[in-house]
Amino acid sequence: MVTPIPERHLFGPGPANPYPEATAGLGLPLLGHLDPDFLQIMDEVCEMLRTVWGTSNQRTLPLSATGSAGMEAAFVNTVGRGDVAVIAVNGLFGERMCDVAARCGAEVIRVDHEWGQPIDPQRVVDAHPDPKVIAAVHAETSTGVRSDIAALGRLKGEALLIVDAVTSIGGIDLRTDDWGVDVGYAGSQKCLGVAPGLAPFTINDRAFARRIERPQSWYLDLGLLGGYVGEASTSHTGRTYHHTAPTGMIASMHGALSRILAEGLDQVIARHEEAGRILQDGLQELGLELFAAEGSRLPELTTVKVPDGVDSATVRKELLTRYNIEIGSGVGPYAQTVWRIGLMGHNARPDTARLMLAALEDCLGR
Amino acid sequence: MVTPIPERHLFGPGPANPYPEATAGLGLPLLGHLDPDFLQIMDEVCEMLRTVWGTSNQRTLPLSATGSAGMEAAFVNTVGRGDVAVIAVNGLFGERMCDVAARCGAEVIRVDHEWGQPIDPQRVVDAHPDPKVIAAVHAETSTGVRSDIAALGRLKGEALLIVDAVTSIGGIDLRTDDWGVDVGYAGSQKCLGVAPGLAPFTINDRAFARRIERPQSWYLDLGLLGGYVGEASTSHTGRTYHHTAPTGMIASMHGALSRILAEGLDQVIARHEEAGRILQDGLQELGLELFAAEGSRLPELTTVKVPDGVDSATVRKELLTRYNIEIGSGVGPYAQTVWRIGLMGHNARPDTARLMLAALEDCLGR
Repeated sequence: MVTPIPERHLFGPGPANPYPEATAGLGLPLLGHLDPDFLQIMDEVCEMLRTVWGTSNQRTLPLSATGSAGMEAAFVNTVGRGDVAVIAVNGLFGERMCDVAARCGAEVIRVDHEWGQPIDPQRVVDAHPDPKVIAAVHAETSTGVRSDIAALGRLKGEALLIVDAVTSIGGIDLRTDDWGVDVGYAGSQKCLGVAPGLAPFTINDRAFARRIERPQSWYLDLGLLGGYVGEASTSHTGRTYHHTAPTGMIASMHGALSRILAEGLDQVIARHEEAGRILQDGLQELGLELFAAEGSRLPELTTVKVPDGVDSATVRKELLTRYNIEIGSGVGPYAQTVWRIGLMGHNARPDTARLMLAALEDCLGR
Repeated sequence: MVTPIPERHLFGPGPANPYPEATAGLGLPLLGHLDPDFLQIMDEVCEMLRTVWGTSNQRTLPLSATGSAGMEAAFVNTVGRGDVAVIAVNGLFGERMCDVAARCGAEVIRVDHEWGQPIDPQRVVDAHPDPKVIAAVHAETSTGVRSDIAALGRLKGEALLIVDAVTSIGGIDLRTDDWGVDVGYAGSQKCLGVAPGLAPFTINDRAFARRIERPQSWYLDLGLLGGYVGEASTSHTGRTYHHTAPTGMIASMHGALSRILAEGLDQVIARHEEAGRILQDGLQELGLELFAAEGSRLPELTTVKVPDGVDSATVRKELLTRYNIEIGSGVGPYAQTVWRIGLMGHNARPDTARLMLAALEDCLGR
């Protein structure tokens, strides 16, 4: 282990630097997972998660694993052998959904879109007359693109709508209930400003009623998890032990969510918007070309094309060694030709945007 | 959220109070999951885990979830539809194994034992002539009983041996390779002295070669995970992204494992032994009766019968409110009649044992 550990500016696609309040939460005395004071923390986390999800869903909770396990939870609880799942793919995480759903035995109907473009809701719903679920990624971490989930919700018909909000929650507008999202999952380590390790999750009554009774995953079985997070009761008694919740991480998330709501969710979203605008304007002023389609660019995660004649890895290494700045490479076909720059959570600020631009300008010799 | 958060003595079945070095690890600057300095931390964690597992298995790593997900990983990667799984049951966690294996489609052959007794290895292997896997719990958290895994390993034949080491790792002798364990899983929050959230896992080449090629879980697919933890390479380059590892928790585990190995694993085990002996002797001197069979008692987790005429919950509540001491109730049929007292990891000390005895003596009015 390198000593001292370098203090990185985590400007990649996540994890981001946590909110100070999240780090402080990790230093609090550890509580047991059935401690009445911990159960109160858990209840408050669930309540604050409802606010950032934009939902009144009773079954809103942090799953005890990372965002990808949230994806798995969404599918194992809703699709079984032979169920039709229509999945919109416009990047890596849509592709991953297809893999996960297929492992549940679903008949996957994949609706591909060009990477860098948002999904086309009408094409997605036209792919099958009566799917059990329709799934899409709100903010594609691989391409920096925002898709119109509200439009998909209006068109979904009887299908359950599953939405990946890993990179949108806590950073841009997210309205689970208003948009008709039935199942949503997210991650802790991006705009929520917590270290990786938790997957905020929400499912409405309609989806819960149509769930798989005994999913192939015990760990992610929402029917079993409900007893622990207090589904049947608003008191702190009568909780059923399921597994040992990561109490320290949940205290950390409590710190971050309290901070976000104290600042004001609208203000936090505006802060992401402003930081992203400064960054994206500045990149273009440097003569760089943005990758994501105009009008669908995420403020919290910017994709930019590597200029001709520039080696992607060399610049990333120089940012890391000279400035302690981490940015991400592209993904899949764009691994060498795109950079991903995230200004998420605590990092969504004008000063970080200016730092990023100044460092990149220097490393590019412009 | 209660302010200030109470400083509990976590003397239940886990989580235990973390080692100070584990808490310090949480305060280090957060690194990205592909940062070269983080990959070095991850490599060192895997290497230290090999020591506490007693294995040279290349595929030894911390899974990004709690111990119960480790159980799920063990089964989803080794058993599929129709595979025979012989499972020794002498408590709650053996029962849970049956549930998890059945969800993988396995034909589960359950070999029940009286709770409080160790498993009978001969009975277990006699249950089926040619199972794909045999599974057992090394240290049953629900009953405080240690079973003889070495004997099971000698008798296992061609079957793969899966062992639950959640409550044994870092606390008592554990010899994965010498005992013939093919797949092992554990948790971070007990004798390893880390907060809950990681599942140390190990699988040998023999089991990996016989694994399920495309397990029903994407998140726990060991074939995919291998690319990230550097299976194909000892360098820090060429790692394949799978999911975002909980980098903060892994830095915390690095702190705890470094501490354990600096103290000396044998000394740590002796410390658990001594603390358990002081506690168990003291409980009997108070006139209490131990629950686990003599000769098979875990030093790190003691089960003791609630005396006649004493209400279990009342005493637990008094310990919590007067002394900030958490102990556990019993499980299942013993929920009201047994207490579970853990002195694990950082809590495995003579002073904590004496504190526990003094507080219990006071609350019992003895």
